[in-house]
Amino acid sequence: MSGTPAHSLADTEPSFPVEPWAIRETELNRAALAVTESVFALGNGHIGMRGTLDEGEPRAVPGTYLNGFFEERPLPHAEAGYGFPESGQTVLNVTDGKLIRLLVSDTPLDLNYGTVLAHERVLDLRSGLLVRRSEWLSPNGHSVRVRSQRLVSFTRRSIAAICYEVEPLDADLYIAIQSDLLANEPLTDGMPSDPRAAAALKSPLHNELADCGDLGAVLVHRTERSQLRMAAGMDHEFDVPEKVATSLEAAGDLARLTIAARLPKGSRLRLVKYLAYGWSSRRSASALRDQVEGGLATAKLAGWDVLAQEQRDFLDRHWEAADIEIDGDPELQQAVRFATFHVLQAGARAEEQPIPAKGLTGPGYDGHAFWDSETFVLPVLTYTAPRAVCDALKWRHSTIELARERADMLMQAGAAFPWRTIRGEECSGYWPAGTAAFHVNADIADATVRYLNATEDEVFDADHGAELLIATARLWASLGHFNGDRAFRITGVTGPDEYTAIVDDNIYTNLMAQRNLRAGADAAERQPEVAERREVTVEEIESWRAAAEAMTIPYDEGLGVHQQSEGFTHHAEWDFEGTTPEQYPLLLHFPYFDIYRKQVIKQADLVLAMHLRGDAFTAEEKTRNFAYYEARTVRDSSLSAATQAVIAAEVGHLQLAYDYWGEAALGDLHNLHHNSHHGLHIASLAGAWTVAVAGFGGMRDHDARLSFAPRLPPGISGLRFRLQFRGRGLQVRIEPEQATYVLRSGAPLTVWHHGEELEVTADAPVSRPLPPLPEVEPVDQPAGKRPRRRTARS
Amino acid sequence: MSGTPAHSLADTEPSFPVEPWAIRETELNRAALAVTESVFALGNGHIGMRGTLDEGEPRAVPGTYLNGFFEERPLPHAEAGYGFPESGQTVLNVTDGKLIRLLVSDTPLDLNYGTVLAHERVLDLRSGLLVRRSEWLSPNGHSVRVRSQRLVSFTRRSIAAICYEVEPLDADLYIAIQSDLLANEPLTDGMPSDPRAAAALKSPLHNELADCGDLGAVLVHRTERSQLRMAAGMDHEFDVPEKVATSLEAAGDLARLTIAARLPKGSRLRLVKYLAYGWSSRRSASALRDQVEGGLATAKLAGWDVLAQEQRDFLDRHWEAADIEIDGDPELQQAVRFATFHVLQAGARAEEQPIPAKGLTGPGYDGHAFWDSETFVLPVLTYTAPRAVCDALKWRHSTIELARERADMLMQAGAAFPWRTIRGEECSGYWPAGTAAFHVNADIADATVRYLNATEDEVFDADHGAELLIATARLWASLGHFNGDRAFRITGVTGPDEYTAIVDDNIYTNLMAQRNLRAGADAAERQPEVAERREVTVEEIESWRAAAEAMTIPYDEGLGVHQQSEGFTHHAEWDFEGTTPEQYPLLLHFPYFDIYRKQVIKQADLVLAMHLRGDAFTAEEKTRNFAYYEARTVRDSSLSAATQAVIAAEVGHLQLAYDYWGEAALGDLHNLHHNSHHGLHIASLAGAWTVAVAGFGGMRDHDARLSFAPRLPPGISGLRFRLQFRGRGLQVRIEPEQATYVLRSGAPLTVWHHGEELEVTADAPVSRPLPPLPEVEPVDQPAGKRPRRRTARS
Repeated sequence: MSGTPAHSLADTEPSFPVEPWAIRETELNRAALAVTESVFALGNGHIGMRGTLDEGEPRAVPGTYLNGFFEERPLPHAEAGYGFPESGQTVLNVTDGKLIRLLVSDTPLDLNYGTVLAHERVLDLRSGLLVRRSEWLSPNGHSVRVRSQRLVSFTRRSIAAICYEVEPLDADLYIAIQSDLLANEPLTDGMPSDPRAAAALKSPLHNELADCGDLGAVLVHRTERSQLRMAAGMDHEFDVPEKVATSLEAAGDLARLTIAARLPKGSRLRLVKYLAYGWSSRRSASALRDQVEGGLATAKLAGWDVLAQEQRDFLDRHWEAADIEIDGDPELQQAVRFATFHVLQAGARAEEQPIPAKGLTGPGYDGHAFWDSETFVLPVLTYTAPRAVCDALKWRHSTIELARERADMLMQAGAAFPWRTIRGEECSGYWPAGTAAFHVNADIADATVRYLNATEDEVFDADHGAELLIATARLWASLGHFNGDRAFRITGVTGPDEYTAIVDDNIYTNLMAQRNLRAGADAAERQPEVAERREVTVEEIESWRAAAEAMTIPYDEGLGVHQQSEGFTHHAEWDFEGTTPEQYPLLLHFPYFDIYRKQVIKQADLVLAMHLRGDAFTAEEKTRNFAYYEARTVRDSSLSAATQAVIAAEVGHLQLAYDYWGEAALGDLHNLHHNSHHGLHIASLAGAWTVAVAGFGGMRDHDARLSFAPRLPPGISGLRFRLQFRGRGLQVRIEPEQATYVLRSGAPLTVWHHGEELEVTADAPVSRPLPPLPEVEPVDQPAGKRPRRRTARS
Repeated sequence: MSGTPAHSLADTEPSFPVEPWAIRETELNRAALAVTESVFALGNGHIGMRGTLDEGEPRAVPGTYLNGFFEERPLPHAEAGYGFPESGQTVLNVTDGKLIRLLVSDTPLDLNYGTVLAHERVLDLRSGLLVRRSEWLSPNGHSVRVRSQRLVSFTRRSIAAICYEVEPLDADLYIAIQSDLLANEPLTDGMPSDPRAAAALKSPLHNELADCGDLGAVLVHRTERSQLRMAAGMDHEFDVPEKVATSLEAAGDLARLTIAARLPKGSRLRLVKYLAYGWSSRRSASALRDQVEGGLATAKLAGWDVLAQEQRDFLDRHWEAADIEIDGDPELQQAVRFATFHVLQAGARAEEQPIPAKGLTGPGYDGHAFWDSETFVLPVLTYTAPRAVCDALKWRHSTIELARERADMLMQAGAAFPWRTIRGEECSGYWPAGTAAFHVNADIADATVRYLNATEDEVFDADHGAELLIATARLWASLGHFNGDRAFRITGVTGPDEYTAIVDDNIYTNLMAQRNLRAGADAAERQPEVAERREVTVEEIESWRAAAEAMTIPYDEGLGVHQQSEGFTHHAEWDFEGTTPEQYPLLLHFPYFDIYRKQVIKQADLVLAMHLRGDAFTAEEKTRNFAYYEARTVRDSSLSAATQAVIAAEVGHLQLAYDYWGEAALGDLHNLHHNSHHGLHIASLAGAWTVAVAGFGGMRDHDARLSFAPRLPPGISGLRFRLQFRGRGLQVRIEPEQATYVLRSGAPLTVWHHGEELEVTADAPVSRPLPPLPEVEPVDQPAGKRPRRRTARS
């Protein structure tokens, strides 16, 4: 996917004290507001809420999102071409329910004015709450303490809630609280630059219904082009020490509960706001209203404490099953937990909606899902929250008819899934780095194979999995061809590295397609009913296996390395010495034609193939290839560092792997890509887990085997991670001299440790020594691109 | 350049009787109106007028153009990229001065109504007039004869004129004539599909001044974005048998002379309308008004007869110097004269403005100039109207600063001229077939070398030519690189064949760049002052020669043919048998990715290299290459047939060359590309000359030699053509058994006949026999793509 320009809003790096289970802001950093809104975003895969302050302002990029809810917009082309999509899809900032404004005496609480006496926000990774405390002295001399706790429920998909408390600090006070549902908030940032597209997204929600009761209200809105309907509802409970007056109004784009109260010094007003969201392309306005009011009724019945307890219980179970523990690097420990927490938020309850590149934490990339989901996010969830993977793949499967139509439009067989989308239609406006990146189809197949292997979910296979594998195998068979030498070639496509486009025999694409073709053949044989329904013949299965067998794997005999694509290693070298730091990311400062034709790599491509298709390379090849491509990879994509870490660890560059681990895990906390204000990099955060498990754990899942090759980076004295695999709970403990495999639940399991087969049973953890590290020549990066050196600190 | 969709307006093939010196319409073919408007277009390179009927309606695509006069419009991109142009340029339909409406009694003359008793239009290629005669019976029973003669003066660049006569046929009649200048005519066709772009072009002319006298008026308008100003003026003379009343008004977008008259039966009203046009980016409205009024004054002083005589004299001189005579194929004779007439109209008086792909005959391709100009049009003009070539190259030179800025933006040295433009800025909205087609720079250099060689114009060389050659040579030195084997490679570019894009070592590009590098080195040595001004060092010159020497020429040893680009011959074959006629042109029915990666060729690329760089191939290579590429070339571009004819003739496929000659010459008269309604294909028309001279004449101009290899196609009993070369007039006469070289003027000249050196002097024509035709295997085209078989008819 293409990069986003560095943005002034976001160039300040926020700073959070190191602690194991929380991300804490200890003072209000206005310059970093946009980034902290992303960092403090809450979500459950269905609802996403950026970490905007309760009172709504100051703010940078306001955002509340419902997964799958979008507006269409024109995709203009200076010169149109056959098959170019003419319509795009953009995630919408929906009705904002988190707004609670406070009037202190006659002055609105706004941290831009008055004096901030104290301020703290904490994202608590165990409770799942965003907790905020501010003490504020108004310009006219009144001081208050505000405390809020916000949650987006993991257990109740449509529910969010806020517990809001106000306390006068030094005198009795009259206050007014206004709790809003507000639609069509004006956006100042993140709008498309094309004026027609921007126009389509200005006030995109059209009110259809506004209802209110005593303390609750519902607004139903509809989009004009995508014709989707959404409802947002709120209800309230409050405790107040003295006299109070409330009023409620709901009309058009605003529903508002106003509470006017007198608060004696030392007393406290407590308001609980329950929120429910729903959307549909088919259900009526009144049906949606009833749906959210029903959700509100049960949430209110449960009450705040129960919602908060459910949230903690859910997370306790999650950490119990999936926590990663690092001894010797507390900063990284914090970052890895933050990362996996956000991956969980993005995917936990997506439920047949996509997992977008930014999750639901911001409007970046228009809210689109890419290959990131299947390649970087689902592998994490496969071993930590497999139910979410099932849902995510069912979403892909739900778009298979659109993918068949797209393949048909592209004159290919099978299904061609989109490069970027929300609902399933191709939304890429630049085909050389969009439609041509057909590897997304093999990535979907790979995620399917991995999920099936890790769960043995036969129902999913019969209903969805086999069909995904067959449709994508069919695509590869038609995309490729046998050349005169009977080699199977896939020409004219773009691999993961978007600094090299429209090439022949991209090695990543070919190796993933090879696996896809074989998996499609296996699936057709395993699920004969599906195969029959899809009219797969024995000859077709044979042709898939033959294509896989004859797949072209480009290799440069002279250099002794594989070629990322045919001819790649014969291209001109990039002038890294002559490239200034300000000229990165390159795509914003150099023309595509010049980037494409030189040996400069945006992100791991062949190196990613060596991870996901490590079975196709020898150890020596991996070492040589890694050195060659490492020197030409600039990491202009956040998707790269974790993969480089995995292979660095495998071939023996443990310090480098450690450095990249830091880069992947801290990418958003340190705003390393200068665009975290538009949302977090979910795939890169997933990489924080991947480096631990596949990098230092050496975990691979080729050919239905679960193998490990544990190592520890310098200075780290221990690393422990937990996986779910075929109904078992497995823990791997890595210490400097040995690794221990512990079966925490389930039947005995066979795993591999540095090539040695082990049987792990519930009553007998198995320990094995770590073999000596292979000797390896140092590698280098392009000038100026060496990663920040990481040193362990206890 | 990309194709234009077939259009319902234009799918009817017009039909014109065969005659040697005219194109004649003998009845009104309403369905072919759009095409005949193009065919009957008049122009001189400065003013262009489509052949719309005098009374303005019925019409299809109204158009009056001033070369270089355009409006800017936004170029939208679904996903923007570094260096993508954000603004385009579109030729404007300027103030229409050819409108003469006639009210017959109380009914407007409109051939859509009433009865057309007789109708004829004739484009007379010797007089340069468009003559129209109509006899019309109005719905209420009045009949008139209308006769008009229209010219756009070759000798007075800013002047056009119309001689208009009306005659009542069967009764005395009251008539009114309204002679208009009308700005901002509404267009219904040819508008950009993007609504913002269309909006920018709706009523693009803003009136600044409207002046009138007794019988004349001037309107001055200005564009909003490009800030160009234009003036259109008219003046009149008339003879009328009886009483008459005239009135003149001028305001806003309309100036109109109204003549009310009573015409006795058998009498005749004769009106001469003089038109003058001018535009400027700098001159004031009143200066422009004075300029056109001055032009009108001298034109009116000369009078219609003198203007018409000047036109004929100009054309007499032209045909005397440049006519091509064909014995045995009158249809082709007519088509070739029509073709060269339009090439002359496009280029004769362009005078430091571009020669657009459609000349000034329609709005196609936004009025842009492409490489067509230098590669296909200028070679014709070099040997028939060299002054026009000097002007055209001066226009390119006038944009050299913009080209330097563009090269700089693209991180290259030297100058990068635009793929498509009006004023000099890059206007291509699709870089893989735009910016990446760097060969345009070598094409400009090639045209420069050819012009210098054919004219020995040292002034041009010192002032413009050397600088063009140096700037483009510099570009190639920076675009290419020496690889490990010390071969010079040019990677990541697009050659002439737009069905193959972003490739390495396109053979056409490399061979033309090789010539460009050497020509740049020669120029720097020949013009040391220019070289010094441009800071060309001896080392730089050496590096250009070294790069040229080491240029990569891809060759497939296995197949024994050259590769159009690296790897081309290893790509998948296109399924021609599975492609239906309706699926052409392919780019409208298949995705680029699939077209690019297969062995399907839109237009001559390597075959064009074998023409322009024939010195780089052996005869045997040409024969083998032609057969290979002929079988894969679909001619979805009108730029292809003539080049295929040239090489077909050279390697011995004379019938095939003859077939392609017909296709090139008749392309617009028969509307073979289904888009002649948007303007004529000037480069393809130029090809009609090129097939005669370079194809059957075998003329080549490599290395400052003028060589011939005459042949005659089957059934043609004679072919004669005339050239200008270094101040000489040369005629070549080809008969079935021999060719004769006649020096018609100038000093003795050395030429080559099938490799034999000949001295031709004024008093001694030299005849030589045609050598026997080499034996050659038949070649084939893609299924369904064999050209229409041409048979000679006397």
